Amino acid sequence: MTTGAGTTAEQSAEQRVLERIERARLRKAKVKEERVTLAHGAGGKATQTLIEAVFLDAFRNPHLDDMADGATLTLNGTRTVFTTDTFVVSPLFFPGGDIGHLAVNGTVNDLAVCGARPMYLSAGFILEEGFPVADLRRVVESMATAAAAAGVTVVTGDTKVVQRGKADGCYINTAGIGVLERDLTLTASAARPGDAVLVSGPIGDHGVTIMLARGELDIEADLASDTAPLHEPVAALLDAVPGGVRVLRDATRGGVATVLNEVAQTARLGIVLDEAAVPVKPVVNGACELLGIDPLYVACEGRFVAVVDGEHAETALAALRGHPSGEGAAIAGRVADEPPGAVLLKTSFGGTRIVDMLVGDPLPRIC
Amino acid sequence: MTTGAGTTAEQSAEQRVLERIERARLRKAKVKEERVTLAHGAGGKATQTLIEAVFLDAFRNPHLDDMADGATLTLNGTRTVFTTDTFVVSPLFFPGGDIGHLAVNGTVNDLAVCGARPMYLSAGFILEEGFPVADLRRVVESMATAAAAAGVTVVTGDTKVVQRGKADGCYINTAGIGVLERDLTLTASAARPGDAVLVSGPIGDHGVTIMLARGELDIEADLASDTAPLHEPVAALLDAVPGGVRVLRDATRGGVATVLNEVAQTARLGIVLDEAAVPVKPVVNGACELLGIDPLYVACEGRFVAVVDGEHAETALAALRGHPSGEGAAIAGRVADEPPGAVLLKTSFGGTRIVDMLVGDPLPRIC
Repeated sequence: MTTGAGTTAEQSAEQRVLERIERARLRKAKVKEERVTLAHGAGGKATQTLIEAVFLDAFRNPHLDDMADGATLTLNGTRTVFTTDTFVVSPLFFPGGDIGHLAVNGTVNDLAVCGARPMYLSAGFILEEGFPVADLRRVVESMATAAAAAGVTVVTGDTKVVQRGKADGCYINTAGIGVLERDLTLTASAARPGDAVLVSGPIGDHGVTIMLARGELDIEADLASDTAPLHEPVAALLDAVPGGVRVLRDATRGGVATVLNEVAQTARLGIVLDEAAVPVKPVVNGACELLGIDPLYVACEGRFVAVVDGEHAETALAALRGHPSGEGAAIAGRVADEPPGAVLLKTSFGGTRIVDMLVGDPLPRIC
Repeated sequence: MTTGAGTTAEQSAEQRVLERIERARLRKAKVKEERVTLAHGAGGKATQTLIEAVFLDAFRNPHLDDMADGATLTLNGTRTVFTTDTFVVSPLFFPGGDIGHLAVNGTVNDLAVCGARPMYLSAGFILEEGFPVADLRRVVESMATAAAAAGVTVVTGDTKVVQRGKADGCYINTAGIGVLERDLTLTASAARPGDAVLVSGPIGDHGVTIMLARGELDIEADLASDTAPLHEPVAALLDAVPGGVRVLRDATRGGVATVLNEVAQTARLGIVLDEAAVPVKPVVNGACELLGIDPLYVACEGRFVAVVDGEHAETALAALRGHPSGEGAAIAGRVADEPPGAVLLKTSFGGTRIVDMLVGDPLPRIC
């Protein structure tokens, strides 16, 4: 999380971002490809390089932190979180949700994991000429339902139409504003050895649901997207262990593995995951085996990762499990001194392996 | 402009929006087409119907006003304006600017015409697989330059990549936050008979520049987009005639004609334009004749329309002309009792004709 001004924590956060930009400059973060690839949008290593080499370099300011889900700003003394996300999921409709649900919950969740109370959303549509008006209506009504459920209001919008073949039905951008009502600074660099790593529920349901909905796997499964607003389980957690929550991140593109790598890199600490403790549904595991991918890289749209003071791990877990969206929560690992900047997985067979950031894009357009 | 809570003006604004939604319901605003057409994104009549029949109906809340360039919200007592705009201009680069410039200035201007000081922007990119990284860098650097010139900071962002053929190079959404530091309520319903209608400079440069850049007209012309941030000329105007400015609107999609129709409809008053007084460059007039369109419908990206107390018209004009972006400003017409809800043009030949809202989309993807 980046911060605007004021406390020492905020100043050091600014300092950290500037250092990060400087490091990227010094090591000359460079996009090697001459053309944009799907991997640049996958949320993993290529995305990180693109952001450092192109966006951070140009927009060079202490608010912009590629690691954060939103920017924390001070507006006339009101601590506000501002965030944006674009949705290009294909197909638009899938078991458990649709692009409209994702567009609302995705931005609500970016605000929630910054510790903010989500309040207002904008909605920007790009429609392809020929898109059925009935589908648009369905998407918009779904957004309205999701917004009501999350307690946010869509207050401003925009619609553009492009010619046939210049989009894929419907893309939606939402930006969101939330208010920081708690006196807390959630940041990856606050992680400490001995902290517990919690996952708020079984991972990968969303990504696998999308793959199944595309018919790319010749299996049938009783599975639905996990798309859900997370502000309530987040609030339950923050209430249960005041001052004990160090980092919150929603595990979307790149999955839990990528989020934890970002935390490990920023904190310059290790994260040790216990494979047996990471909650994954058997059907998700099965589909991932067929796809040849690790569920740790599969996107969720209603799950988050929390790094919590180890002493309060059980209290935190109980708080999460007390909420319907967190009933499958688990303590999946811990923060350690070693290996610095990396994520280590203790496998169910007793071995260990390094879990890197996502490379390539095995599951394009899942959000 | 819609408002959150508080003053009587704000309450009546809420009331007005709710009445508008109700009227749309009663007359059953209906999208007749089964599929989305380019006209639905053109900013004119079809866009208005789509917004009323689909968006207002679903999102039914007093903040959302399809007539406004942004929503005014109260965040812990801080009056904040929130707005969003998506940019799909083709080509991406054109004389006088590019999609990056537009994406910054467009949202800065939406905030400015709501009376806010533009402060923070988000940026959401949709990139097509294969888009040249060098072009992306050029766009992003252009955004950074435009942001610095407008005094805003890009604080949060998102990048998605879609497969080849599912976009057109690069689309950008920006959302913006500004702070309302003045005690004013700018709203179309504040217009009064006798008010002056000012245009901040020659109209149509942007739209015609885009058409020429596409090579769709076999003419060469020394013309560039008018893309520019408007917060400074707006501030100059508001300072010069405190309390005398009723309405401000930037004249983008649908042009001056559409903006003025929206004002006339909301205020239930007439607007009488003097064709000879509307500033249009000869080259723009010439291109429009070839295209068979009226410059009043051609988008600007650095011009606004102001409805000002008639007694202060000359002071307002002088204030606008005192700023480089407003040196071509003119008093183009006045508000009248008749014709209620419509715009009348007194032609250079001494006749009069009704200037309706934009119908169809003669110039798709100009922003």
